[in-house]
Amino acid sequence: MRELLVIGIGAGDPDQVTIQAVKAMNRADVFFVIGKGDEKQDLVDLRMGILDEHMRGTYRVVDITDPPRDRTPSDYQGVVDDWHDRRAAVFEAEFAAVDGVGAILVWGDPSLYDSTLRIVERVLARGVVDFDYSVIPGVTSVQSLAAQHRIVLNRIGRPVHITTGRRLREGLPDGVDDAVVMLDADCTFTQVPGEDAEIWWGAYLGTEDEVLISGNLRQVEDEIVRVRAELRERKGWIMDTYLIRR
Amino acid sequence: MRELLVIGIGAGDPDQVTIQAVKAMNRADVFFVIGKGDEKQDLVDLRMGILDEHMRGTYRVVDITDPPRDRTPSDYQGVVDDWHDRRAAVFEAEFAAVDGVGAILVWGDPSLYDSTLRIVERVLARGVVDFDYSVIPGVTSVQSLAAQHRIVLNRIGRPVHITTGRRLREGLPDGVDDAVVMLDADCTFTQVPGEDAEIWWGAYLGTEDEVLISGNLRQVEDEIVRVRAELRERKGWIMDTYLIRR
Ligand SMILES: C[S@@+](CC[C@H](N)C(=O)[O-])C[C@H]1O[C@@H](n2cnc3c(N)ncnc32)[C@H](O)[C@@H]1O
Ligand SMILES: C[S@@+](CC[C@H](N)C(=O)[O-])C[C@H]1O[C@@H](n2cnc3c(N)ncnc32)[C@H](O)[C@@H]1O
Repeated sequence: MRELLVIGIGAGDPDQVTIQAVKAMNRADVFFVIGKGDEKQDLVDLRMGILDEHMRGTYRVVDITDPPRDRTPSDYQGVVDDWHDRRAAVFEAEFAAVDGVGAILVWGDPSLYDSTLRIVERVLARGVVDFDYSVIPGVTSVQSLAAQHRIVLNRIGRPVHITTGRRLREGLPDGVDDAVVMLDADCTFTQVPGEDAEIWWGAYLGTEDEVLISGNLRQVEDEIVRVRAELRERKGWIMDTYLIRR
Repeated sequence: MRELLVIGIGAGDPDQVTIQAVKAMNRADVFFVIGKGDEKQDLVDLRMGILDEHMRGTYRVVDITDPPRDRTPSDYQGVVDDWHDRRAAVFEAEFAAVDGVGAILVWGDPSLYDSTLRIVERVLARGVVDFDYSVIPGVTSVQSLAAQHRIVLNRIGRPVHITTGRRLREGLPDGVDDAVVMLDADCTFTQVPGEDAEIWWGAYLGTEDEVLISGNLRQVEDEIVRVRAELRERKGWIMDTYLIRR
């Protein structure tokens, strides 16, 4: 493989792909798709749909099967670390087999809660294969959330915090009053104290299943918990994110 | 005006516009451009270049002249607030004069340190004009910074903080060790203590003048201060942002 393109494709809407991403896709000979195992088939399908819509010529798709991963580790960082190493070995073998330009499509933007760049760096650090690589930024689910609710993430002159459900459970740092929460399987917003907090929640953003709920946190939290459970039950998976303002 | 489209156009590279943004632009009859006063002519030109590149038909451009603004206010929030009110009155008059679909192109994404959505809400709250409006998300300069440096903003399972130079001067909150800093005219990174911090800095991201510097903060801070001053002197203005990791 001569070159690798890591391409952010937006978080759901095929039209939220940039012109730069479309041009990059059309330079690629092979797309690596991380399919079985970690990812839901619906998400793989959404990604392939985006590819289909924007590719002019023919292309080859190589399925990469992720090694299994411990979902409830006690030593979170250590387990994720080890998993990335095993993953790098799998990628290395696939990269070595390719002639020309490879590409990986990344959900949203590669810079936010995504492991692709870490894997690529690990593959290169192993020193077995060598290639140029570049990153094409994409619209994140954070931007998509804000756009659909027509909100500004920061208050005037103030910071925005982007965090995970796991971290939110430990409480927000002092001085952080506006937080976007991702990767929250447990509706951790119900544990944020106070009567005055507001929430802007969105699920399946940019897709035809998109649902938005917003309002005073105490007034809408039960509705979000209920709707989220129903949606998750119906589709078998859910992607949701929210802004909390306290 | 029947409808208003607030369109994120990415932070510099005309190819970093999404397909959705291009489609939205082509639905607009009139573009409102905030030109004189607050914004540098180069930036207006960049924006008009993006428009030019992606528009298929003819279109009308309406210049909106911003009311003057106190640049060194003591009561920051209050002064910004008052300025937004005067600005809303100017926009209201321009909106009222338009028949069809209007659009405002926003640098990067409208959800991050941008006042457009606040102005639109203020115009609507005045109750004089009425219209539908929607927001089209864009790639932010934060994503652009990360892509050019090929970095992930968050460490595994940890938060990312997005803040301003002004806030950084007061110190980062406890528990915040990864911060993207925008709107920093004073190289506030030099005031971040510690020998082990790292910085990834970028100026004019996505444009032909792009400059990137990264490394141990103490080792590269002087270089960034010098390069930044030179660039700013040469072009008359600068846009830069950085990730600090401590
Ligand atoms: C592994 S992270 C990847 C984030 C991605 N790189 C981005 O830029 O948005 C996955 C999390 O992103 C959020 N997410 C991604 N796509 C989403 C969508 N279409 N709607 C709502 N949330 C989404 C959810 O919080 C989900 O748990
Ligand atoms: C008023 S804020 C607007 C941010 C914009 N809405 C976004 O999504 O990037 C302007 C700040 O964004 C950053 N910025 C915007 N464009 C940039 C670029 N092309 N290169 C470096 N920094 C940029 C700088 O920190 C600048 O002070």
